[in-house]
Amino acid sequence: MTNGQMPYKLATIDLGSNSFHMIVVQIDAFGQVTILDRLREPVRLGGGLDAKGNLSLEAQQRAVDCLRRFGERIRDFPSDNVAAVGTNTLRLTKNSREFLHRAEAALGHPIAVISGREEARLIYLGVAHSLAKDQQGKRFVMDIGGGSTELIIGQGFEPLHLESLRMGCVSSTLAFFPDGKLVKACWDKAITAALLELRPIKAAYRAIGWESATGASGTIRAVKKVIQQTGLAPYGITLEHMYRVRDMMIEAGHIDRLKLPGLSDERKPVFAGGLAVLIAVFEALKIDRMLVSDGALREGLVYDRLERYQHDDIRDKAVRAWQQRFQVDQSYAAAVHLTALKLFNRCRDDWKLPSHLAELLGWAADLHELGLAVSHSSYHKHGGYLLEYADLPGFSTEEQRWLSVLVRTHRQKISSKLFGLLDVEDYQNALYLCVLLRLAVLLHRSHKEIAPRIERIRVAKNRIELRFADDIRMKKPLLLADLEREQVFLKAVKMELIF
Amino acid sequence: MTNGQMPYKLATIDLGSNSFHMIVVQIDAFGQVTILDRLREPVRLGGGLDAKGNLSLEAQQRAVDCLRRFGERIRDFPSDNVAAVGTNTLRLTKNSREFLHRAEAALGHPIAVISGREEARLIYLGVAHSLAKDQQGKRFVMDIGGGSTELIIGQGFEPLHLESLRMGCVSSTLAFFPDGKLVKACWDKAITAALLELRPIKAAYRAIGWESATGASGTIRAVKKVIQQTGLAPYGITLEHMYRVRDMMIEAGHIDRLKLPGLSDERKPVFAGGLAVLIAVFEALKIDRMLVSDGALREGLVYDRLERYQHDDIRDKAVRAWQQRFQVDQSYAAAVHLTALKLFNRCRDDWKLPSHLAELLGWAADLHELGLAVSHSSYHKHGGYLLEYADLPGFSTEEQRWLSVLVRTHRQKISSKLFGLLDVEDYQNALYLCVLLRLAVLLHRSHKEIAPRIERIRVAKNRIELRFADDIRMKKPLLLADLEREQVFLKAVKMELIF
Repeated sequence: MTNGQMPYKLATIDLGSNSFHMIVVQIDAFGQVTILDRLREPVRLGGGLDAKGNLSLEAQQRAVDCLRRFGERIRDFPSDNVAAVGTNTLRLTKNSREFLHRAEAALGHPIAVISGREEARLIYLGVAHSLAKDQQGKRFVMDIGGGSTELIIGQGFEPLHLESLRMGCVSSTLAFFPDGKLVKACWDKAITAALLELRPIKAAYRAIGWESATGASGTIRAVKKVIQQTGLAPYGITLEHMYRVRDMMIEAGHIDRLKLPGLSDERKPVFAGGLAVLIAVFEALKIDRMLVSDGALREGLVYDRLERYQHDDIRDKAVRAWQQRFQVDQSYAAAVHLTALKLFNRCRDDWKLPSHLAELLGWAADLHELGLAVSHSSYHKHGGYLLEYADLPGFSTEEQRWLSVLVRTHRQKISSKLFGLLDVEDYQNALYLCVLLRLAVLLHRSHKEIAPRIERIRVAKNRIELRFADDIRMKKPLLLADLEREQVFLKAVKMELIF
Repeated sequence: MTNGQMPYKLATIDLGSNSFHMIVVQIDAFGQVTILDRLREPVRLGGGLDAKGNLSLEAQQRAVDCLRRFGERIRDFPSDNVAAVGTNTLRLTKNSREFLHRAEAALGHPIAVISGREEARLIYLGVAHSLAKDQQGKRFVMDIGGGSTELIIGQGFEPLHLESLRMGCVSSTLAFFPDGKLVKACWDKAITAALLELRPIKAAYRAIGWESATGASGTIRAVKKVIQQTGLAPYGITLEHMYRVRDMMIEAGHIDRLKLPGLSDERKPVFAGGLAVLIAVFEALKIDRMLVSDGALREGLVYDRLERYQHDDIRDKAVRAWQQRFQVDQSYAAAVHLTALKLFNRCRDDWKLPSHLAELLGWAADLHELGLAVSHSSYHKHGGYLLEYADLPGFSTEEQRWLSVLVRTHRQKISSKLFGLLDVEDYQNALYLCVLLRLAVLLHRSHKEIAPRIERIRVAKNRIELRFADDIRMKKPLLLADLEREQVFLKAVKMELIF
């Protein structure tokens, strides 16, 4: 992607529930990162989401306008050098695809929606890179977003334990301080609600423990600033100081009358909910003191992409880990993977397959037998289910949908509605990948490691023709029967298989 | 179940796709099994199943008539001493529940549908008990039913590897010898089709290997008898002798003209399909010689129930194995299990809960966090999915549905349609169990091992009242908030929670 050019630029964009952020960095030949540009706009996307998952047209427009401005800055970037991710609000938006189409058009680059745990992983990566490299002990890192809160314990650059909870500064403010009143009863309810969310997970966090606690995100930075500028403490955050801030807010009685040194007008509308969440986390996890980092999701994305370029792709590790957890026969999967990629390379030009689909095909081959761990019957369906819902580090929601669809359709009947998880525009490519994976699996069906040699492959739209080195009609009656059966399966989705 | 009385009687019934079988045994104080009675009727249930999964009324009637006759023999047995299972045809029957209601009424006892792999496990158990106890090496065991074929490798009484394939003597005959013609082309097609089914699995079987091969089932016994009585060989089955039998059948040209020594009139209509399947298995797995056992599914059921009574329940082992595979926190699960059973015991009389539901509740508690291995978000749904489709040895399909429903409803919103997997008559009990599991989980939410002490529980229809030893309103605000939230969840299914 960098065409070997050094230094190169990389942009990462975080479509958060409260603000949108973009950073543009330059990476030199030694992997050193220099920040060239930082942009932030308070889009308040989360405020436009109703309980049914509909995103208001106004919020959509604010988002699109912001992305158009971001897009101007990176118009000439190759898309491989841009990583844009959506978080909690887009996770909860019904039919987010429509909005994403408009948003991608405005930005000029693709946008991926990521899971809460993937968000937590990236935040940890971003924060860990902002901290002292020589710190050995375990670190607690947290981030309060507009609609979700991420809690991570890690060591060095590795997250050990992570969660993403559905509570954030925007959602907590909307639920408990809807009319701007700052009375004690509202605070109690807001903090209790957050404590309830934390209740099932706090034992695990406290059992693991940590040596330092670090917070990221606008909410936590604002809390620190208020504590500092009201003269409560020169740095860091403690529970006692937060209670003092809360009491000052109760005294003010209403957000409109609130004047806290250090609190910007822009942060003010969502500050109460954010502070309530932070107080609850301190109470539940018994945090003494928290320092504040500037690292965040967008920095994490930079380091994640850097690792991918250095062939240390977290997604490969996630696939290996799942193969192990679900006891996949790895040498057989590797043989199918290899054959699938060989087929891909021989068809890619004629079928105009984008190169990034090769890695998705390979991972689908790695995981195609995943569902066997659940049950032998219909195991392709179980594999499809697992991949649709899995917590797979490094993967976007869309990438997991591709894996799910490919594994789901790798054997037995195919029907075009099975591609329904994907964007309509991707159906054709998904069908081609499906055919390649099915053929790779079929070629390995009898003898597990070696596939019969194919002398020539010719493809056209909705058509693939294989000529085998051996006369399979004479020598391989079972392969022949299998291919004949496959012809029938493929015909149902208007693909012609000739051999 | 035996009320300690020795000896006691046990009946097992196998509702096979070709024949129905019943055996009645007596078990003495040393666990010795004596067969008192064997019944068999050629119901041909599989022949009444169409491609859409509808079971013809005639076939249903034949089945019900047979079960009524079986039922007469065991009318006075306690239902705990009867184990009746349905296999492939009932697995494939759409809306089998309606038929099962009639069938259970005729038999006078419950009937469970079991998965193909559970069938394979039980067959192995039945055959292994019929073989020499001192044989040390690995054993290959197979059974050709009307609609499925089970292939197992085991050692002693433990199955090591097992599969159930959807091909059997009835289905193969219907597909390849529909009009009774016995020409070579039909044989080739039938054998190739069976080889294709065997293709994905044969490498694994040959890699494991075995020292002796044993066949069970009517088809295999009939093949042996024909080989014997035509003077081909005094005992055992080889591929060469089967080819000779096939050639004799081709010579006869039509089933109506077929006269094979040793072949009964009743076996004749499904013999060709069964022989084709057996030939394919010999070819694919390179079996030299097979001996024939009288052990079968029904004997396996006897030994399985014996093990349950001796507190060596295979289902417990299966639950432990799944906890391990999916990395469930076992000590936490055990604490929830214990609390759930305590609650059960305090409510069972008033709610009239049948005692066998206690073990289902316990297993649901053991596995309620199963879905965490897939994803943290909505993990109750993933657990429900896994348990619905899991290959869990020892469990019937119905039992797995209970586990699935209980895990699916153990947190968040409940709606009565979530109980839809179960029989309508079971909804009320399922709701009660659901409430007990939810409360057990809730009581363990904050501190993982110890639940708050409950002084008194009072229940009535759709109502449960808890009085805690502590004043939770003063001392446990989070438990209180949790219980208040639970009140709302339970209200949606018309359950009243008072505390």
